[in-house]
Amino acid sequence: MVRGLRKRFRVVGLAAGRNVTLLEEQAREFQPRLISFEGNERPSRSVINVRGAAWSSLQEMAVHPDVDVVVVATAGKAGLAPTLAALAAGKVVALANKEALIMAGKIVAATAERGRGEIRPIDSEHSAIWQCLRGEKKTAISRLILTASGGAFRDKGPEELRLVTPEQALRHPTWQMGRKITVDSATLLNKGLEAMEARWLFDVPLDRIEIVMHRESVIHSFVEFVDGSLKAQLGLPDMRLPIQYALCYPERLPLPSLPRLDLKQTRALHFEKLDLQRYPCLGLALEAGHRGGTYPAVLAAADEVAVEHFLAGHIRFTDIPPVIEETLDGHDGISDPDLDGIQAADAWARARAEDLVRAKA
Amino acid sequence: MVRGLRKRFRVVGLAAGRNVTLLEEQAREFQPRLISFEGNERPSRSVINVRGAAWSSLQEMAVHPDVDVVVVATAGKAGLAPTLAALAAGKVVALANKEALIMAGKIVAATAERGRGEIRPIDSEHSAIWQCLRGEKKTAISRLILTASGGAFRDKGPEELRLVTPEQALRHPTWQMGRKITVDSATLLNKGLEAMEARWLFDVPLDRIEIVMHRESVIHSFVEFVDGSLKAQLGLPDMRLPIQYALCYPERLPLPSLPRLDLKQTRALHFEKLDLQRYPCLGLALEAGHRGGTYPAVLAAADEVAVEHFLAGHIRFTDIPPVIEETLDGHDGISDPDLDGIQAADAWARARAEDLVRAKA
Repeated sequence: MVRGLRKRFRVVGLAAGRNVTLLEEQAREFQPRLISFEGNERPSRSVINVRGAAWSSLQEMAVHPDVDVVVVATAGKAGLAPTLAALAAGKVVALANKEALIMAGKIVAATAERGRGEIRPIDSEHSAIWQCLRGEKKTAISRLILTASGGAFRDKGPEELRLVTPEQALRHPTWQMGRKITVDSATLLNKGLEAMEARWLFDVPLDRIEIVMHRESVIHSFVEFVDGSLKAQLGLPDMRLPIQYALCYPERLPLPSLPRLDLKQTRALHFEKLDLQRYPCLGLALEAGHRGGTYPAVLAAADEVAVEHFLAGHIRFTDIPPVIEETLDGHDGISDPDLDGIQAADAWARARAEDLVRAKA
Repeated sequence: MVRGLRKRFRVVGLAAGRNVTLLEEQAREFQPRLISFEGNERPSRSVINVRGAAWSSLQEMAVHPDVDVVVVATAGKAGLAPTLAALAAGKVVALANKEALIMAGKIVAATAERGRGEIRPIDSEHSAIWQCLRGEKKTAISRLILTASGGAFRDKGPEELRLVTPEQALRHPTWQMGRKITVDSATLLNKGLEAMEARWLFDVPLDRIEIVMHRESVIHSFVEFVDGSLKAQLGLPDMRLPIQYALCYPERLPLPSLPRLDLKQTRALHFEKLDLQRYPCLGLALEAGHRGGTYPAVLAAADEVAVEHFLAGHIRFTDIPPVIEETLDGHDGISDPDLDGIQAADAWARARAEDLVRAKA
C-alpha cells in the first residue's frame, strides 16, 4: 500500500513474524531505520542485514519519535502490547489486529483517550461505519448495523455441516483472507468479534449493534441515526480501500487500480435475518461480549484453539462451538480485569480448550 | 414539521398560495408576525385577520432581520425571487422549490456565495447526497449517483404508453407527491431536473452525475469518492426526514413517528440501467442541462405547459416529449443570461409550447 504513497509516507520501521526473507526484501525496498521480527532476541547480523536498519522490539518501534502512524496488522495477542504502547504515546494506530480490542477493549479505549492516541480501523466493516460517521456527532447514532456474508456454509444444512472439511471452510464466497479468519467467517464467530470491536471503536453499547446477512458483501456496514436516516458504505470487496483510508485520513486519495462498483451490474443486494441456530458461535460471541470482563478473551482463545485443531483435522467443524461454549461455561470471569488478569484468563482458556479438544478428537 | 420543533423554531412569517383558509388556521396556531399569499396586493382585513400579523411580500419576509431559515416550498417560478433575496441577505434557505436552481442555478449559486447565504436541499435525493457529503471534502467527490424509481410506467411498453390516462400517471409506485411532479416522475424528466439541481447544489459538473434505476426508493442516492468508496443514504420514502434534517442541520433530532427501515423485511434492493429510449424526457433534460444558459428554463417551461395539458386531457402522455423537444429546438439560447433574459426565455417557451400543444390537441 505504502508503495503507492511514497510521497506521503516514509517507512520508519518494519516488523514481520517468521517470514524473514520477505522482511529483508521489504527492508531493502523501503530502507526502514528499525526492523523487528518474532522472538524477542536481537538477531545475528547474518539473519538480516540491511544498511542502516537496527533491530528493535515492536513496542520500541511503536513509540519511536519519528513514527506518526503505526499499522498493527499482526494477528493474535502479539498486537496488543504495541497497540497500547503506540496509543499511550499519542500515535495514530491503523488497527487490523482484532485481539487488542477483543481482549482488552476497555483498556485500549482508555489508553487512547489518556494518551491522545487515535485508533483507525482497517477492517472493511469498521471502516464502513467510520466513513458513515464522518462529520456526524456521536450522540446522533442510533444503531450500528454490521453486514455478514454468511460465510462458506451459509447454504448448508445442519447434517452437511458435520462433514465439512477444512478445505471447504477455507472457500469464502466473497473475501480472500487468512485461514483462521476464513473459518471464523464460516462460523460467524468473526462477526461477533467485529461487534465487540465496534463497541470499543465507536463507543456504542453492544445492544445497539446489529448484524444482518448480506450475501453480496457490497454494503460493508450501515449506521442508523436517531432521526431514522441510515447511511451505508459500499464497494467491491477489496482491502486496499480501508487500508488507504486509514493511512491517509482525512484525505481520500485516488485508487485507480481498485475495481469500481457498477450498481447496474450488481443488479440486486440482498438482506436476510441471521439465524442464530445455524450460527451458534455468533450467539456465544455476543453473549461473551455482553458479559464483558475476561469473557471475550476466553472466547477468542478457545476459538483459536478449536479452529487450529479443526484445520489440522483433529476435530469436526461442528465441534468448534461446543469447545468454545464449554470453555466459557467453565470460566470464572473477572468483571474489570487488568492486563495480567486478561493474560491469565487467556492462558487458562487455551489450556481448557486443549483439554476439551483432546476429549473430542 | 415545525409543530414538533416548537422549542427550536419560532415562525416569523407564513406564506400561502391561494389556500387562505389553511393560512389563517396556521397563522392562529403559530402566531407569525408576517403573512403572505398569492397576488401581490395587501388583503382587506376581512380576508385574513390574525392578531399581530401583518401582510408582507415573499421577498420582504425572506429578508426580515428576525428570520434565520427560509423554507421555500412554493412550486414554480414564484420560488426564485424569495430564494435570491434570502440568500443575498445571508439566510439559510431550505429549498424544496426546483425552479430556482433549474432556471437560474448559476445566479442562485453566485448569490449564495456573495451573500454568504446557505442552501439546504429538502428533496430526498439531494438530502441523501448532502448527508453522504457530511464531513467530506468537495475535492474527494468522484460522482453523484441519483436513484430513480422509474415512475408509474416503468413496466409499460411503448404502445401502452400512448394510451395512459392522467389517473394512471398519478399513481407513483413509491412516493406520494403533487400532480405535476408525479407526472414528471413518470416521464423521468424530474430526474433530469434533479441532476441539474445537484449540479448547482454540490458544484459537481453534470457529466459526473449519474442516474440509476432503483425500484424500491429505499436508497435515496449515492456519492462515489475518488478512492472508489461509495456512500449511500437510505430510509423508507418519507419527506419528514429530509425536511427536519434541513431545518435542524447540523443536529439530527429523534423522529420517533417515522417508520424505520427494516433491511430484513426489505430483503432486496434492485438496480437497473435506465433506458433513455424509454424515457425521452430524461434525455432532453440532460441535454438542456449540458447546453446550459437559458435551455433549462425553456425545458422546464415547456414541460409545465405540456404536463398541464396532459392532465387536462388535451394531449397524450406520449405528446409530452415532442412538445418539449420542439420547444427546445426552436429556442435561440443565451449562454450566460441575467434574470431578465431567463424570464424572457421562460415566457417565450410557454407561448411556443402552447402553440405546439394546440397543434397536437
